[in-house]
Amino acid sequence: MTTEDTFTVEPWCLREPRLELDQLASTEAVLTVANGSLGVRGTLDEGEPVGMPGTYLAGVHELRTMVYTETGSGDPESTETLVNTIDGTAVRLLVDGHPLDVRTGTLLHHERVLDFRAGTLSRELRWRSPDGRSVEVTSTRLVSLDQRGVLALRYAVRALERPVEVVLQSGLVANTQQPHLPSHPSAVDLLEHPLEPQEHDANGRLTLVHRTLRTGLLVGATAHHDVESPAELDVHGEATPDHARFTVRAKLEPGESVTLTKLVAYAWSDTHELPALRDELAGALTVARHEGFDGLLASQRTVLDGFWECADVEIDGDDELQQAVRFALFQLLQATARAEGRAVAGKALTGTGYEGHAFWDTETFVLQVMTAVRPEVTRHALGWRHATLPAARERATTLDLKGAAFPWRTITGPECSGYWPAGTAAFHVNADVADAVLRYVDATGDEEFAREAGVELLVESARLWCSLGHWGRDERFHVFGVTGPDEYSALGDDNVYTNLMLQRNLRGAARWVRRYPQAAEPLEVTLDEVAAWEQAADAVCIPYDDDLGVHPQSAGFTLAPRWDFAGTPEENYPLHSHYPYLQLYRKQVVKQADLVLALFLRGDAFTDEEKLRDFTYYEEITVRDSSLSACCQAVLAAEVGLPHLAHEYVVESALADIRDPEHDSSDGLHVAALAGTWLALVCGFGGLRQVDDGLSFRPVLPDELPRLRFRLLFRGRLLRVTVEPGQATYELLRGEPLTVRHERDDLELAVGVPVTRPTRPRPRPPLPSQPETRAPGRGTLRDDSRPGTPASAGHHEQA
Amino acid sequence: MTTEDTFTVEPWCLREPRLELDQLASTEAVLTVANGSLGVRGTLDEGEPVGMPGTYLAGVHELRTMVYTETGSGDPESTETLVNTIDGTAVRLLVDGHPLDVRTGTLLHHERVLDFRAGTLSRELRWRSPDGRSVEVTSTRLVSLDQRGVLALRYAVRALERPVEVVLQSGLVANTQQPHLPSHPSAVDLLEHPLEPQEHDANGRLTLVHRTLRTGLLVGATAHHDVESPAELDVHGEATPDHARFTVRAKLEPGESVTLTKLVAYAWSDTHELPALRDELAGALTVARHEGFDGLLASQRTVLDGFWECADVEIDGDDELQQAVRFALFQLLQATARAEGRAVAGKALTGTGYEGHAFWDTETFVLQVMTAVRPEVTRHALGWRHATLPAARERATTLDLKGAAFPWRTITGPECSGYWPAGTAAFHVNADVADAVLRYVDATGDEEFAREAGVELLVESARLWCSLGHWGRDERFHVFGVTGPDEYSALGDDNVYTNLMLQRNLRGAARWVRRYPQAAEPLEVTLDEVAAWEQAADAVCIPYDDDLGVHPQSAGFTLAPRWDFAGTPEENYPLHSHYPYLQLYRKQVVKQADLVLALFLRGDAFTDEEKLRDFTYYEEITVRDSSLSACCQAVLAAEVGLPHLAHEYVVESALADIRDPEHDSSDGLHVAALAGTWLALVCGFGGLRQVDDGLSFRPVLPDELPRLRFRLLFRGRLLRVTVEPGQATYELLRGEPLTVRHERDDLELAVGVPVTRPTRPRPRPPLPSQPETRAPGRGTLRDDSRPGTPASAGHHEQA
Repeated sequence: MTTEDTFTVEPWCLREPRLELDQLASTEAVLTVANGSLGVRGTLDEGEPVGMPGTYLAGVHELRTMVYTETGSGDPESTETLVNTIDGTAVRLLVDGHPLDVRTGTLLHHERVLDFRAGTLSRELRWRSPDGRSVEVTSTRLVSLDQRGVLALRYAVRALERPVEVVLQSGLVANTQQPHLPSHPSAVDLLEHPLEPQEHDANGRLTLVHRTLRTGLLVGATAHHDVESPAELDVHGEATPDHARFTVRAKLEPGESVTLTKLVAYAWSDTHELPALRDELAGALTVARHEGFDGLLASQRTVLDGFWECADVEIDGDDELQQAVRFALFQLLQATARAEGRAVAGKALTGTGYEGHAFWDTETFVLQVMTAVRPEVTRHALGWRHATLPAARERATTLDLKGAAFPWRTITGPECSGYWPAGTAAFHVNADVADAVLRYVDATGDEEFAREAGVELLVESARLWCSLGHWGRDERFHVFGVTGPDEYSALGDDNVYTNLMLQRNLRGAARWVRRYPQAAEPLEVTLDEVAAWEQAADAVCIPYDDDLGVHPQSAGFTLAPRWDFAGTPEENYPLHSHYPYLQLYRKQVVKQADLVLALFLRGDAFTDEEKLRDFTYYEEITVRDSSLSACCQAVLAAEVGLPHLAHEYVVESALADIRDPEHDSSDGLHVAALAGTWLALVCGFGGLRQVDDGLSFRPVLPDELPRLRFRLLFRGRLLRVTVEPGQATYELLRGEPLTVRHERDDLELAVGVPVTRPTRPRPRPPLPSQPETRAPGRGTLRDDSRPGTPASAGHHEQA
Repeated sequence: MTTEDTFTVEPWCLREPRLELDQLASTEAVLTVANGSLGVRGTLDEGEPVGMPGTYLAGVHELRTMVYTETGSGDPESTETLVNTIDGTAVRLLVDGHPLDVRTGTLLHHERVLDFRAGTLSRELRWRSPDGRSVEVTSTRLVSLDQRGVLALRYAVRALERPVEVVLQSGLVANTQQPHLPSHPSAVDLLEHPLEPQEHDANGRLTLVHRTLRTGLLVGATAHHDVESPAELDVHGEATPDHARFTVRAKLEPGESVTLTKLVAYAWSDTHELPALRDELAGALTVARHEGFDGLLASQRTVLDGFWECADVEIDGDDELQQAVRFALFQLLQATARAEGRAVAGKALTGTGYEGHAFWDTETFVLQVMTAVRPEVTRHALGWRHATLPAARERATTLDLKGAAFPWRTITGPECSGYWPAGTAAFHVNADVADAVLRYVDATGDEEFAREAGVELLVESARLWCSLGHWGRDERFHVFGVTGPDEYSALGDDNVYTNLMLQRNLRGAARWVRRYPQAAEPLEVTLDEVAAWEQAADAVCIPYDDDLGVHPQSAGFTLAPRWDFAGTPEENYPLHSHYPYLQLYRKQVVKQADLVLALFLRGDAFTDEEKLRDFTYYEEITVRDSSLSACCQAVLAAEVGLPHLAHEYVVESALADIRDPEHDSSDGLHVAALAGTWLALVCGFGGLRQVDDGLSFRPVLPDELPRLRFRLLFRGRLLRVTVEPGQATYELLRGEPLTVRHERDDLELAVGVPVTRPTRPRPRPPLPSQPETRAPGRGTLRDDSRPGTPASAGHHEQA
C-alpha cells in the first residue's frame, strides 16, 4: 500500500514528491503510461530497483497448460497469459563510472509526476555519486494516445558542481527477469523467458524481434535516438538477441547537459511473417520521427484536451476525490484509447494481475463510463467481443448449450478459467455484454454497429439463455445452477441479477431482430424463437422472500445461515484468503454487490421501497472484499437517500489504487473500480440513469460536497450537469436540442440555455449497518484511520 | 474389459483358460493376491508382458504436490499417493538362452486359476522356445492371510521332449517402471522412481531396503530361496541398489524338473530406523521359513475354511452369480484380513486407482458386509478411522468447523481431495463412519470398542454436524451447501441422505454419551451439548416435494430440469467423461443411489408407499455411472416388490470386475461394488436389515433363482438363512438362542432347530423405466447383449 502522503493532492496530476522504495511495485502500476494497445509500467528509467518490470502489448500472450487436481469434461486445457514484452524504457546512466542507482550514493531529490493533461510521466532527480559527483536528471515518458505503438522518452542529464564523464546506455531488452511479487496470487505462473529471439540489429536504429514460443506471435520493437549536447559525444550501437543498446559518452562541464530523445515503435502480429513486421516497425518509427518528441507531446495534449472536454468531473469540497476521479478517468482513457480489436483487461496494461485477462466488469463498469464520455472506445471493445463469437460458440457447444457462452476470463476469446463454479458458471457475462451493446447503441444511435455486430451478439446470447434456462412447474422461466457477480456464492438458482439482466437481453434481442431484420437473417432467427425469448423474458423467475420482505440474491439465499461477522477479526479479511470457499458459499456473506448491482442496473424492476429494504439488508452482509462493490453501494446509497454513506463509498472506491489499501495494486490497477468512481459520482450523486427514452437524473449531494459538475455525451450532444445543494443545472454544450428528465420533469435543453431546477428533499432513512470492521473508510487501512463503525457513530445518517 | 469367456464359470475359483494379452491389466487386478496389508497384482511370473506391475503395502505412500488452477483457502497442499513398492514375484526363465516370453516362441497352453478356498493364484503353461525346446511351467503364488507381510511362491519348470539348459532368475526389484494406462485418469501423476535405495544384499538371502523420498518411509523386502531338482545345480546371488537376484542354472533331461520355492517377507515403518527394520524383516522371514511353503498353503486354507463357514453365499440357478459372489467375498477378505491399523482403499491393494485412497464407501459398503461375516476386520478398520481423528480435527479447524471432519479421500488421514465441491463438501462421510460404528457395536456387542473409540468417533462427528448445520426460520435444523453420495450433484441444501444419516449420528452420540459416561468425560461433553444434538436430530429438515409426492434428493432437486436422456447417445456414458459438471450439477440426473441409498440405510424413515414412489422416480433419472449404484437399486427393487429387476441389478454389480464392462478394472477392483453384491443378495433377496432390536428379514426371491442361502454372524451367533420360493428357513448354527424377525413375526432360533416360515406374496408394482440405454444388463457392453430396454420389454415386471 501507499501511505496517505505518497502522492500530493493536486487537481490535474499525481505527484510523488519523494521515492518510496518499498512501494515501487504499487507506484509502477499507478504511474503506468498506456494507450490501450501499449502499456508501460512506471518503472525507473535505469530499470533498477524495480517492483515488476512491464511493457505489454494488448493481445500478446502465451499459453500456459493448466494442471487440474481432478479433471472434468470441458475444462480448458490451457490459459492465456499476458507476456511482458520488449522493454523500451531503459536508459542507464554512468557518472564517472558509477551507475546511477537510487539505492547507492545520495539521492538529493526525486520527484515523479503523472500529468493528466499532458499525458506524460515525468521525473526529476538530483543524485550525488558515491565519489561525490552530482548530476541532475530529468526525464519525460509518454505512450502516444495518437499513435498506437509508440513509446517516446526524453532523458537529460546535467552536471552540477563538478565536471563529470557520463555514459548513457539506452536499450531495448527482451526477457527481462520477472521478480516474484509476494502479493501476486499466481506468482508461480509467471513465465520466464517467454520470447524466442528472431532478429536483433543496431545499425542506425535498434531493433529486436522475438516470437512467443507456443502462441507463435511475432513481437518487435525498434528505437531511434537523438542526442543533443554542447559537449563532444561518442555514440555507438550494439545488439545481442535479447538486448540492443545505444551508448553515448560525454564529458560535461558544470551546468552542461546531454539530452537523449528516444522514439520506440512497437508492432506485433499473429498472422504476418517477419518481412511484414519489419516494414510495420519501420513505418511506425518513420511516422513517430516525422512527428518528433515535441510533436508527440503536442498531439498527446490535443487528445487529452478533447477527452477532458467531454469527460471531466469537477468536485468542490474534496480535493482528494477531485484528484482521484481525474486519475480514474485518465487511466480509463489510457486503458481504452487505442485498444482497437483487443480486450480491455481487468488490469488493463498496468500489470500481469489476473494474467492479463478481461472479465465481465469491462462491459459493466468500464464501458458504461466510456459510452458516456468516449463512446468510440466502447464500439471497439464490443467489436472485440463480437470477434470472439466463434470461441464463444465453441464454448457453448462444449458446455452442451446453444448460442454463445462468453468466457469468464480471456485475452483473445477462449475460456481461461480453471475453476468453473466461480468462472464459467457466471453466465451473467453474456447478459453484461448484451447490456453494454444495448446501452451503447441507445446512447450513440450507432445503428451500423447494431446491424454489423450488435444483433448477432444479442441473438447468440439470447440463444444461450434459452438453452440454459428451463420452464418450471410453476410456469416460470428459471435458470438453475449459475453464479452471479458475488464471488462468495456459487451455483445458485435464479440469481436475481442474472435473471433481470437476461430478461433485458432477451427483450433486446427480440426488439432488434424486428428492427434489423436483414441483420438477423443470416442468423436464421425464426419467429418462434423470438416468441420464445419474449415468453421467457416475461416469465423469468425473480425470487422474493415474503417473510423478510427482501429479494434473495438467488433462490433460498436468505435462508442460509449468516456469516459470523462478530467472530471474524479484521485481519481475516479478505475472507477468501482466510476461509475456504466451502464455508463462504454456504452462508449469507456477500463479497460484492450482486443484488445491489441489480438494484442499480435494473432499477426499473424494483420499487423505491424494495430498493431501500434490499439495500439495507445487503449492507449488513456485504464485506466488499472486491473492489467492484463500493461504487455500486455508493450508487444505491445515494438513491435511497443516504448521500453521506454514498460519499464514504465513493471515496473508498476512488482511492483503491492511489492509496492501495489492500496492497494489491502492484500487479495492476483495479480498472473497473476506477470506472466505478465515475459511476458512483455520476449515477450516485448525479442520479443518472440511461432509460429507454433517454437520460434521467435524480441528483442528490452529500453535505461534504458543495458542488459536483460532470459532462457526458449522448446521441451526439455534449451535456454538462452541475449539482449544487438544493438544485441542479443542465447545460447543453454541443449538439441538437435534447429532452432529459430531472426527477419527474422533462427538461428541454438547447445550447446556450442552461436550465436549473430544484432537487426535492428526500426522506433520510435509518443508516444501515455494515458487518463489524467493514464500514467504509477513506481508502486507508481501517485500523489506522477509522476507530469506529457506523454503529458506534449512531444509527442515523449524520449531516 | 474382459469378454464373457475370459474366465470359466466355476463355483470356487476364477479360471482363465487361455491368456488374453489385451486384457492383462484388467486380469492383473482381478487375479490379485492380497491380505489387506500386502497386495500383489496378478502379473505374470516373468514380469513381462505387463499391464501395470504392482506390489503394495497398506500405508506406504508418497506425497505429491497439488497444483491448483485457482487457489482457495484450505486447499490441501499435497495428496498422498500409493507407491508401487518392491516386487517380489519376478522369476524369469531362460530356456537354452531364450527368455520365456509368452509373446515369443509358441504358447502351447496357458491357464491361471485364482482359488477361493486355497487362497492361491496358480499358473500352468507349456511353451516351445523359438528354437523348438519345450518346457512346462507351473507356479503357485500366495500372499499369506495368516502372516501379515509374507509372499510365497513356488515355480517349477520341467523339460518336455528334449533336454534343455534352464536358468531361473528370481528377483526383488524396486522402482519398476510404471506404464501409463490409458484408462488411468491421473496417469500423469504416477510416480517414477519413488524409492531411494538404502541397502541391498545377496549374501544368503536377497534383501532390498528403500526409503520413500518425501514421506521418508522405510520399506524392505527379503527373500529366501529353496531349489529342488534331480539335476546338478549352479546357484548364486547378486544385488544392485534396485535389484537383488538369485540365479539357478540346471541342465534338465526330458521329464526332469527344477522347483524353486521363494519366501518373501516385507516390512515397512514410518517410525523405526534401519536396524529395527532389518530385524523385523529377518524375523518375519524366519517365521515364514519355519512354516515353509506347504505350511503357508495349509494355514491359508485354514483361514479360508473359517471365512467361508461364516460368509459363504450359495445361489442356485445362476452359476455365474454364484461364482461372482464368492469372488467378491474372497476379494473382500483379501482387502481386509490383515489391514490392521491401515485404511481399506477404494481399490484395496489391487491397483493405484484413486491413488490408493480410501473413501466413505469402505464404511458404508465394505464394512457393512464385513461386520456380518468377519467383524474383527471392521473393528480394525474403524480403529484406523479413530486413529485419524487428529487429522480430522485439524481439517475441521481449517474449515472453521467444530469436531472432526473426515476426509473425502486419504491414505493416512489428511484430506487429499483437490476439488472440494465433490470432495470435502461430501460431509456425509462423517455420518457413514458413525453408522458403521453403531452397526458394528450393535452387531457384535463389542462395548470395549465403543468405549475406547466409538464414543469419541460419534461425539466428534456430532459436533461437526452441529457446527455445520443451522436452525432456520422454520425452526428446523438445516444443513446447507453440502454434497451427498450422488456425484452428479454438488453443494445442495438439506440432502436427505446426509440429513437422515446425521440424525442417526446425533442420536447415537447422545445415547452413547449416556451409556458410556466415563468414555465421554475426557471429551468434555456437556448435558447442553447432548440436548442440542437431540434437538437437532428431532428437527432435522427432510425436504419433500408435495406436488410430485416424492423426496427430492436435496431441497429443490426435483425442480431442476431433467437431463435430456433421449438426446444422449449410449457412447456418451459415463456422462462425466462427455459433459461438464456444470451441466450435470444443474440437472436432474443421478450418477449413483443417493436418495435410494437413504431408502436402504434409513428405511425406517420412510413408509412403504414412499419407498415405491421414490424408487420409481429415481429409477428414471439414475444412470449408474458409478459402480456403487446397482447394488443399492437392487436392494430397493427387491424391497418394493420387483425381484426380477433386483436380479438384473445384482448381476450387473456382481460382474463389474470379472467382466469389466466399463474398462476400468485395470487400475484396481471396485471393492465397494464387490461388497454391494453381497448387500444386494442378502439385504435385497434376503431382506436383511439390522434394526435397533436385532435382525429383521423380509425375503423375496426372483423367479430366476430357486434358492439363495447365506450365512452371517450376529452377537456371537452364526446364522444360516435359506430362501426358497414361498418360504425361508432360519438356522442357528452356533451360539446362544436368538430372536430374529421374519416379516412381521419374531422367531426364536436355537441350534439344531431350523425354523421355516412362508414368505407372504407381495403386490408387484409397475416396472419403472430407466433412462434410455441405461437399463441394467449382465455386465457386458449393453449394445452387445441387450438390444431392448425395459420399456420395449413391457412396462410390467416379467416372471
